[in-house]
Amino acid sequence: MTVETQNLETLTSDQWFIDKDEHQALSLKYTGEVLYDKTSELQRVRVINTFGYGKTLTIDNMFMTTETDEYHYHEMIAHPVILASGNIKKVLVIGGGDGGTIREVLKHPEIEEVTMVEIDANVVEASKLHLPELSQSFDHPKLKLIIADGIEFMASAEPKSYDLIIVDGSDPAGPAKGLFSEAFYQNCYQGLTKNGILITQGESPCFHQETFAELNACIKGIFGAKKVFTLLFHIPTYPSGLWSFQIASKGNIDPRNISEAKVTEFSAKNPLHYYNFEVHKAAFALPNYVKKLLKEM
Amino acid sequence: MTVETQNLETLTSDQWFIDKDEHQALSLKYTGEVLYDKTSELQRVRVINTFGYGKTLTIDNMFMTTETDEYHYHEMIAHPVILASGNIKKVLVIGGGDGGTIREVLKHPEIEEVTMVEIDANVVEASKLHLPELSQSFDHPKLKLIIADGIEFMASAEPKSYDLIIVDGSDPAGPAKGLFSEAFYQNCYQGLTKNGILITQGESPCFHQETFAELNACIKGIFGAKKVFTLLFHIPTYPSGLWSFQIASKGNIDPRNISEAKVTEFSAKNPLHYYNFEVHKAAFALPNYVKKLLKEM
Repeated sequence: MTVETQNLETLTSDQWFIDKDEHQALSLKYTGEVLYDKTSELQRVRVINTFGYGKTLTIDNMFMTTETDEYHYHEMIAHPVILASGNIKKVLVIGGGDGGTIREVLKHPEIEEVTMVEIDANVVEASKLHLPELSQSFDHPKLKLIIADGIEFMASAEPKSYDLIIVDGSDPAGPAKGLFSEAFYQNCYQGLTKNGILITQGESPCFHQETFAELNACIKGIFGAKKVFTLLFHIPTYPSGLWSFQIASKGNIDPRNISEAKVTEFSAKNPLHYYNFEVHKAAFALPNYVKKLLKEM
Repeated sequence: MTVETQNLETLTSDQWFIDKDEHQALSLKYTGEVLYDKTSELQRVRVINTFGYGKTLTIDNMFMTTETDEYHYHEMIAHPVILASGNIKKVLVIGGGDGGTIREVLKHPEIEEVTMVEIDANVVEASKLHLPELSQSFDHPKLKLIIADGIEFMASAEPKSYDLIIVDGSDPAGPAKGLFSEAFYQNCYQGLTKNGILITQGESPCFHQETFAELNACIKGIFGAKKVFTLLFHIPTYPSGLWSFQIASKGNIDPRNISEAKVTEFSAKNPLHYYNFEVHKAAFALPNYVKKLLKEM
């Protein structure tokens, strides 16, 4: 029996932007208007206007960030590790060219210096032109923006320089591929101060599943199994909806431990859309199938 | 500027099954083979074979359940409320025709009787024919299966009859529409024993967003605001990936409180794929944007 088609819909590419692998696809309907579209030797960067999620930055055929739900990702990459660490002065961000991560990082007044290394000036330009909420911190006096390859930057970075390294890259394709390598994370380990902490975009346990597990294993191999923590959060505009960060601690910081008073104090000064104390605790709870993927069960 | 199409993909309906609203779509690629396809006056029921998630039950153009991730939903609709309640003997399931919910419910030996009221015999037939993992409990001696309209059933149900009512219906369209009405939940309230508890499919805070908030408000109006709890879980094959159950307590059971020993003991006897003690606690943590939708912040 073959399926009748009259009750099924067809998504056409002039109306729907489609982020897919061979088995599943996430599609957002958009106006057809493309606000930004530049292709370099690195990748194609576009800003489209979606009906459900507002202006949306895409790289090649992947959703990067949307105006409406970007805070899920940017709050969760910044606040859990910074609030749990407590003594972060120098931060390095690899990637993150849309500016959302530095906007959140710079909400913490104890941080003295943020170095950001983004490979693609077009991403910064697209965000500055079309995503003002995301790009509002590019002129911050504590920020040093370097347009360069983050992988090469880490290979020659001064050891023990950063209290926090944030790897805010895209999926392991194109220029982000080297962000999923052992050599790169070895260099991150060297670049961290004695009690430093790393957080990196960790893919999804339901999409790029192998990369999710391999990255966790790779970082455990470098930092030690007990120093690596998987944080899960939800984002409706990434395929499957469930995404992760891998956190690795060079010293003894356990990012699961957090003071409720500290989160409450920070939240009172900085109204947040996603993150709160309960969400911090909950983000480290892993369903059994995720524990199995990570060989933690 | 209009988008160039050569780098975008088109999803055709003879290869991809598409579950969508006007703004976003989730699509799973399938073999093209349809294992079951019956249309009644109620709805169209199909079983397709997807590449990523195995055999998949669909109703009209919605994904209902897939072989590969069905346990996310079925474990979370059964175990948190049953383990937190502790004294459940009589259970009523409205809907749930694929059998996944009763399979999980019947893992609790203290339960004496399960009545299931499913409106569409085709759903039961499709599951029995093609989804053996889901349909394995239809012959259980404690089960009483009634093919009837659950809304009408509740309207004439004996008061104070059930310790637990599970509403396992589909989205508010077609025959499931009345499952999102005040009259129906009033009848559920009447049907519960003094300390009884209700759990109902609550839609997504990122898809059918209005229904999500309205259902919560409706149930709060009947049970009282402090007796209603929103449980979140992740399921990759429902649009947006984030889904909810609304839990309402007629007595004083707070489903957030759970004994770790009890969960550990149950899990040792019943190996689970998704649910564990940490997941139970985490499921009640609501991101700020969800609290705002529910007027809880």
